[in-house]
Amino acid sequence: MKLSSRIDVMKPSAIREAGKLIAAKENCISFAAGLPSPDFLPIEEVKEVTEYILEEMGHIALQYGPTKGYAPLLTKIQKMMMDKNILCSTDNIQITTGSQQAISFSAMLFVDKGDTIITENPSYLGALASFGPYECNVKGIDVDNAGMKMDLLEETLKSDKRIKMIYVVPNFSNPTGRTWSLERRKALLELATKYDVPIIEDNPYGEIRFEGEEIPTIKSMDSENRVIYLGSFSKVFCAGLRVGWICADKELISKYEIIKQGADLQSNQLAQMQIDEYLNKYDLNEQILKIVDSYREKRDLMCRLIDECFPKTIKRTHPKGGMFVWLELPEGADAKELLIKSLEKNVGFVPGGPFYPEDGHDNTVRLNYSNMSLEQIEKGMLLLGELFTDEF
Amino acid sequence: MKLSSRIDVMKPSAIREAGKLIAAKENCISFAAGLPSPDFLPIEEVKEVTEYILEEMGHIALQYGPTKGYAPLLTKIQKMMMDKNILCSTDNIQITTGSQQAISFSAMLFVDKGDTIITENPSYLGALASFGPYECNVKGIDVDNAGMKMDLLEETLKSDKRIKMIYVVPNFSNPTGRTWSLERRKALLELATKYDVPIIEDNPYGEIRFEGEEIPTIKSMDSENRVIYLGSFSKVFCAGLRVGWICADKELISKYEIIKQGADLQSNQLAQMQIDEYLNKYDLNEQILKIVDSYREKRDLMCRLIDECFPKTIKRTHPKGGMFVWLELPEGADAKELLIKSLEKNVGFVPGGPFYPEDGHDNTVRLNYSNMSLEQIEKGMLLLGELFTDEF
Repeated sequence: MKLSSRIDVMKPSAIREAGKLIAAKENCISFAAGLPSPDFLPIEEVKEVTEYILEEMGHIALQYGPTKGYAPLLTKIQKMMMDKNILCSTDNIQITTGSQQAISFSAMLFVDKGDTIITENPSYLGALASFGPYECNVKGIDVDNAGMKMDLLEETLKSDKRIKMIYVVPNFSNPTGRTWSLERRKALLELATKYDVPIIEDNPYGEIRFEGEEIPTIKSMDSENRVIYLGSFSKVFCAGLRVGWICADKELISKYEIIKQGADLQSNQLAQMQIDEYLNKYDLNEQILKIVDSYREKRDLMCRLIDECFPKTIKRTHPKGGMFVWLELPEGADAKELLIKSLEKNVGFVPGGPFYPEDGHDNTVRLNYSNMSLEQIEKGMLLLGELFTDEF
Repeated sequence: MKLSSRIDVMKPSAIREAGKLIAAKENCISFAAGLPSPDFLPIEEVKEVTEYILEEMGHIALQYGPTKGYAPLLTKIQKMMMDKNILCSTDNIQITTGSQQAISFSAMLFVDKGDTIITENPSYLGALASFGPYECNVKGIDVDNAGMKMDLLEETLKSDKRIKMIYVVPNFSNPTGRTWSLERRKALLELATKYDVPIIEDNPYGEIRFEGEEIPTIKSMDSENRVIYLGSFSKVFCAGLRVGWICADKELISKYEIIKQGADLQSNQLAQMQIDEYLNKYDLNEQILKIVDSYREKRDLMCRLIDECFPKTIKRTHPKGGMFVWLELPEGADAKELLIKSLEKNVGFVPGGPFYPEDGHDNTVRLNYSNMSLEQIEKGMLLLGELFTDEF
């Protein structure tokens, strides 16, 4: 039986594969997966609202519902968007199964075989994976501490006539933790307009800011419906419920809705109601504040230990929010080999190479600080420091 | 901004569009959507198991989990498959967001642009919709009361060298309610083997049998891993939880898992645990028995009223299970126009034309009997009978 040609280019996620290695070890300290902290899962709150939903609206929660999403939740999300100065109605919102599904749908919507998607270099691994089935080229544009380098972007936009979308994570990026400056966001919007390319602005970490002022989203500056904004409850509420959304031009949303119908009819109905009811009864901002305070402390500890215990030849980013620190090891280092050695010490991380659309960059590492406790971070970083000191 | 070429061929679901018309009317009696009965949603049971899960395993239920699915549920599904004489291990199972997602993934796995998918004629509308993004041809093979006509199938397999999969619903088909005979199932497997084409066997209604003996699934007769079996909890447990599964060759499952990673990382974690815990504490077969008894009564009533009140020129199928009766109105009738008139009487149904991959067949109608009460069925069928008697 012959498989489609797209399957040849699709490979398992390096994170989920590293995760399997780590899961096979007992009590491994893992900086690998991008998991939220277990300390702030709103278990009691979800229990309470679920009881209420099943008592009062069980016949809605357990039955098929609309493809577009649960109407009261659409209204809540619309308000969240308006609070970010994104003008919209519920016609501009489509619920998805996490923003992962929204990324995948965007490639389906915009990209034909042989077309090009532009991403940051490095970019979110899950996005690169979701582009696989569309048999397109993915071109990574190098970044600095203020975002994508605009001269390199324009060069590419000029030379490649088949660029169909630009995918970016401007806030506390996965994997590097970097944030785009306001100027760079404006410049991206200008270039995208000049070359008539849509921007997919993925913002799962935007609320988790430790310091400094919020920088406007690209979508909030978008006067011509060029930006497709992706939001998610995974990092600030519950990842396991798998609820995200798309905020975009009404006509585009109607296309996303048709795609969603064919893909899985609709997302889990109860989960949408759980989030809606939580937002009725609780203040999500209080939840976010707890997360921010904790992650800030963890970021501080991880960065301090990198500075104190790692060889000076290792460079790191300094995330002002989100969940990740990014390391550049000395040229020639192979993070995949180092992971094997690190696992012998019962410490895991993700090698950074797979986050680049092209090969190479094997001397990079993504470290997650949200999921482990302060004690685990301390112990794990000391062990990693020993390993890296031995190696470099 | 240019959209991908695949979007041109994708249209909104005729069911969900008819549903919008119907939802706009108050107290409409609807035989349109394929909704399970509201009477048997296990609301109390779900409430109980959810409380338990959130108390004991909340940190697992609300966190990211494995792409393949929640391990204890995989084991339960494996046992369900073994009970159907389908030899398998959990390596042969992948959880999906309803079997809708499994259909869509199957097209992604097997079909390149310009390839052909074979379906029954008519076939499940949601399957046809899910094939849209893959820019393939869909060829419907006519059916009779014993299943797909094998001579027509072989003719097509002989003449079209680009057939990459055959999609069938052998038990109580959506939309016709028909069931394949054992002989026809064996013949399909033989032909698929001869022409080396995979079979997607979609079986969401198989448990809802009113009479007669269970006929073996095609998968249970499959000695060479040619059949991809799709199962679902939507029709026997809760559609809103969106949990289905694929049972197939281990190598294929590893491909489906990669597709799932890119598409949405994983299905809702709590929903998988709710089903698993329900299966720990309750007997799904008791739930199914209640559904079967009720739907049988509804089918009996609907069929009797068709025979008594509809013009004799209208033909119907006689479903031995499932949720649908299929009507053929006299040649030249247009069910889309009749729906408008029917909605004036506050009765809805789905015109049958869109269930055919090719145009035409506008004189067909799908009637769902599971969702409405006996009283609503009685009233609605009398009103439809009046309309049809006036028309024909």
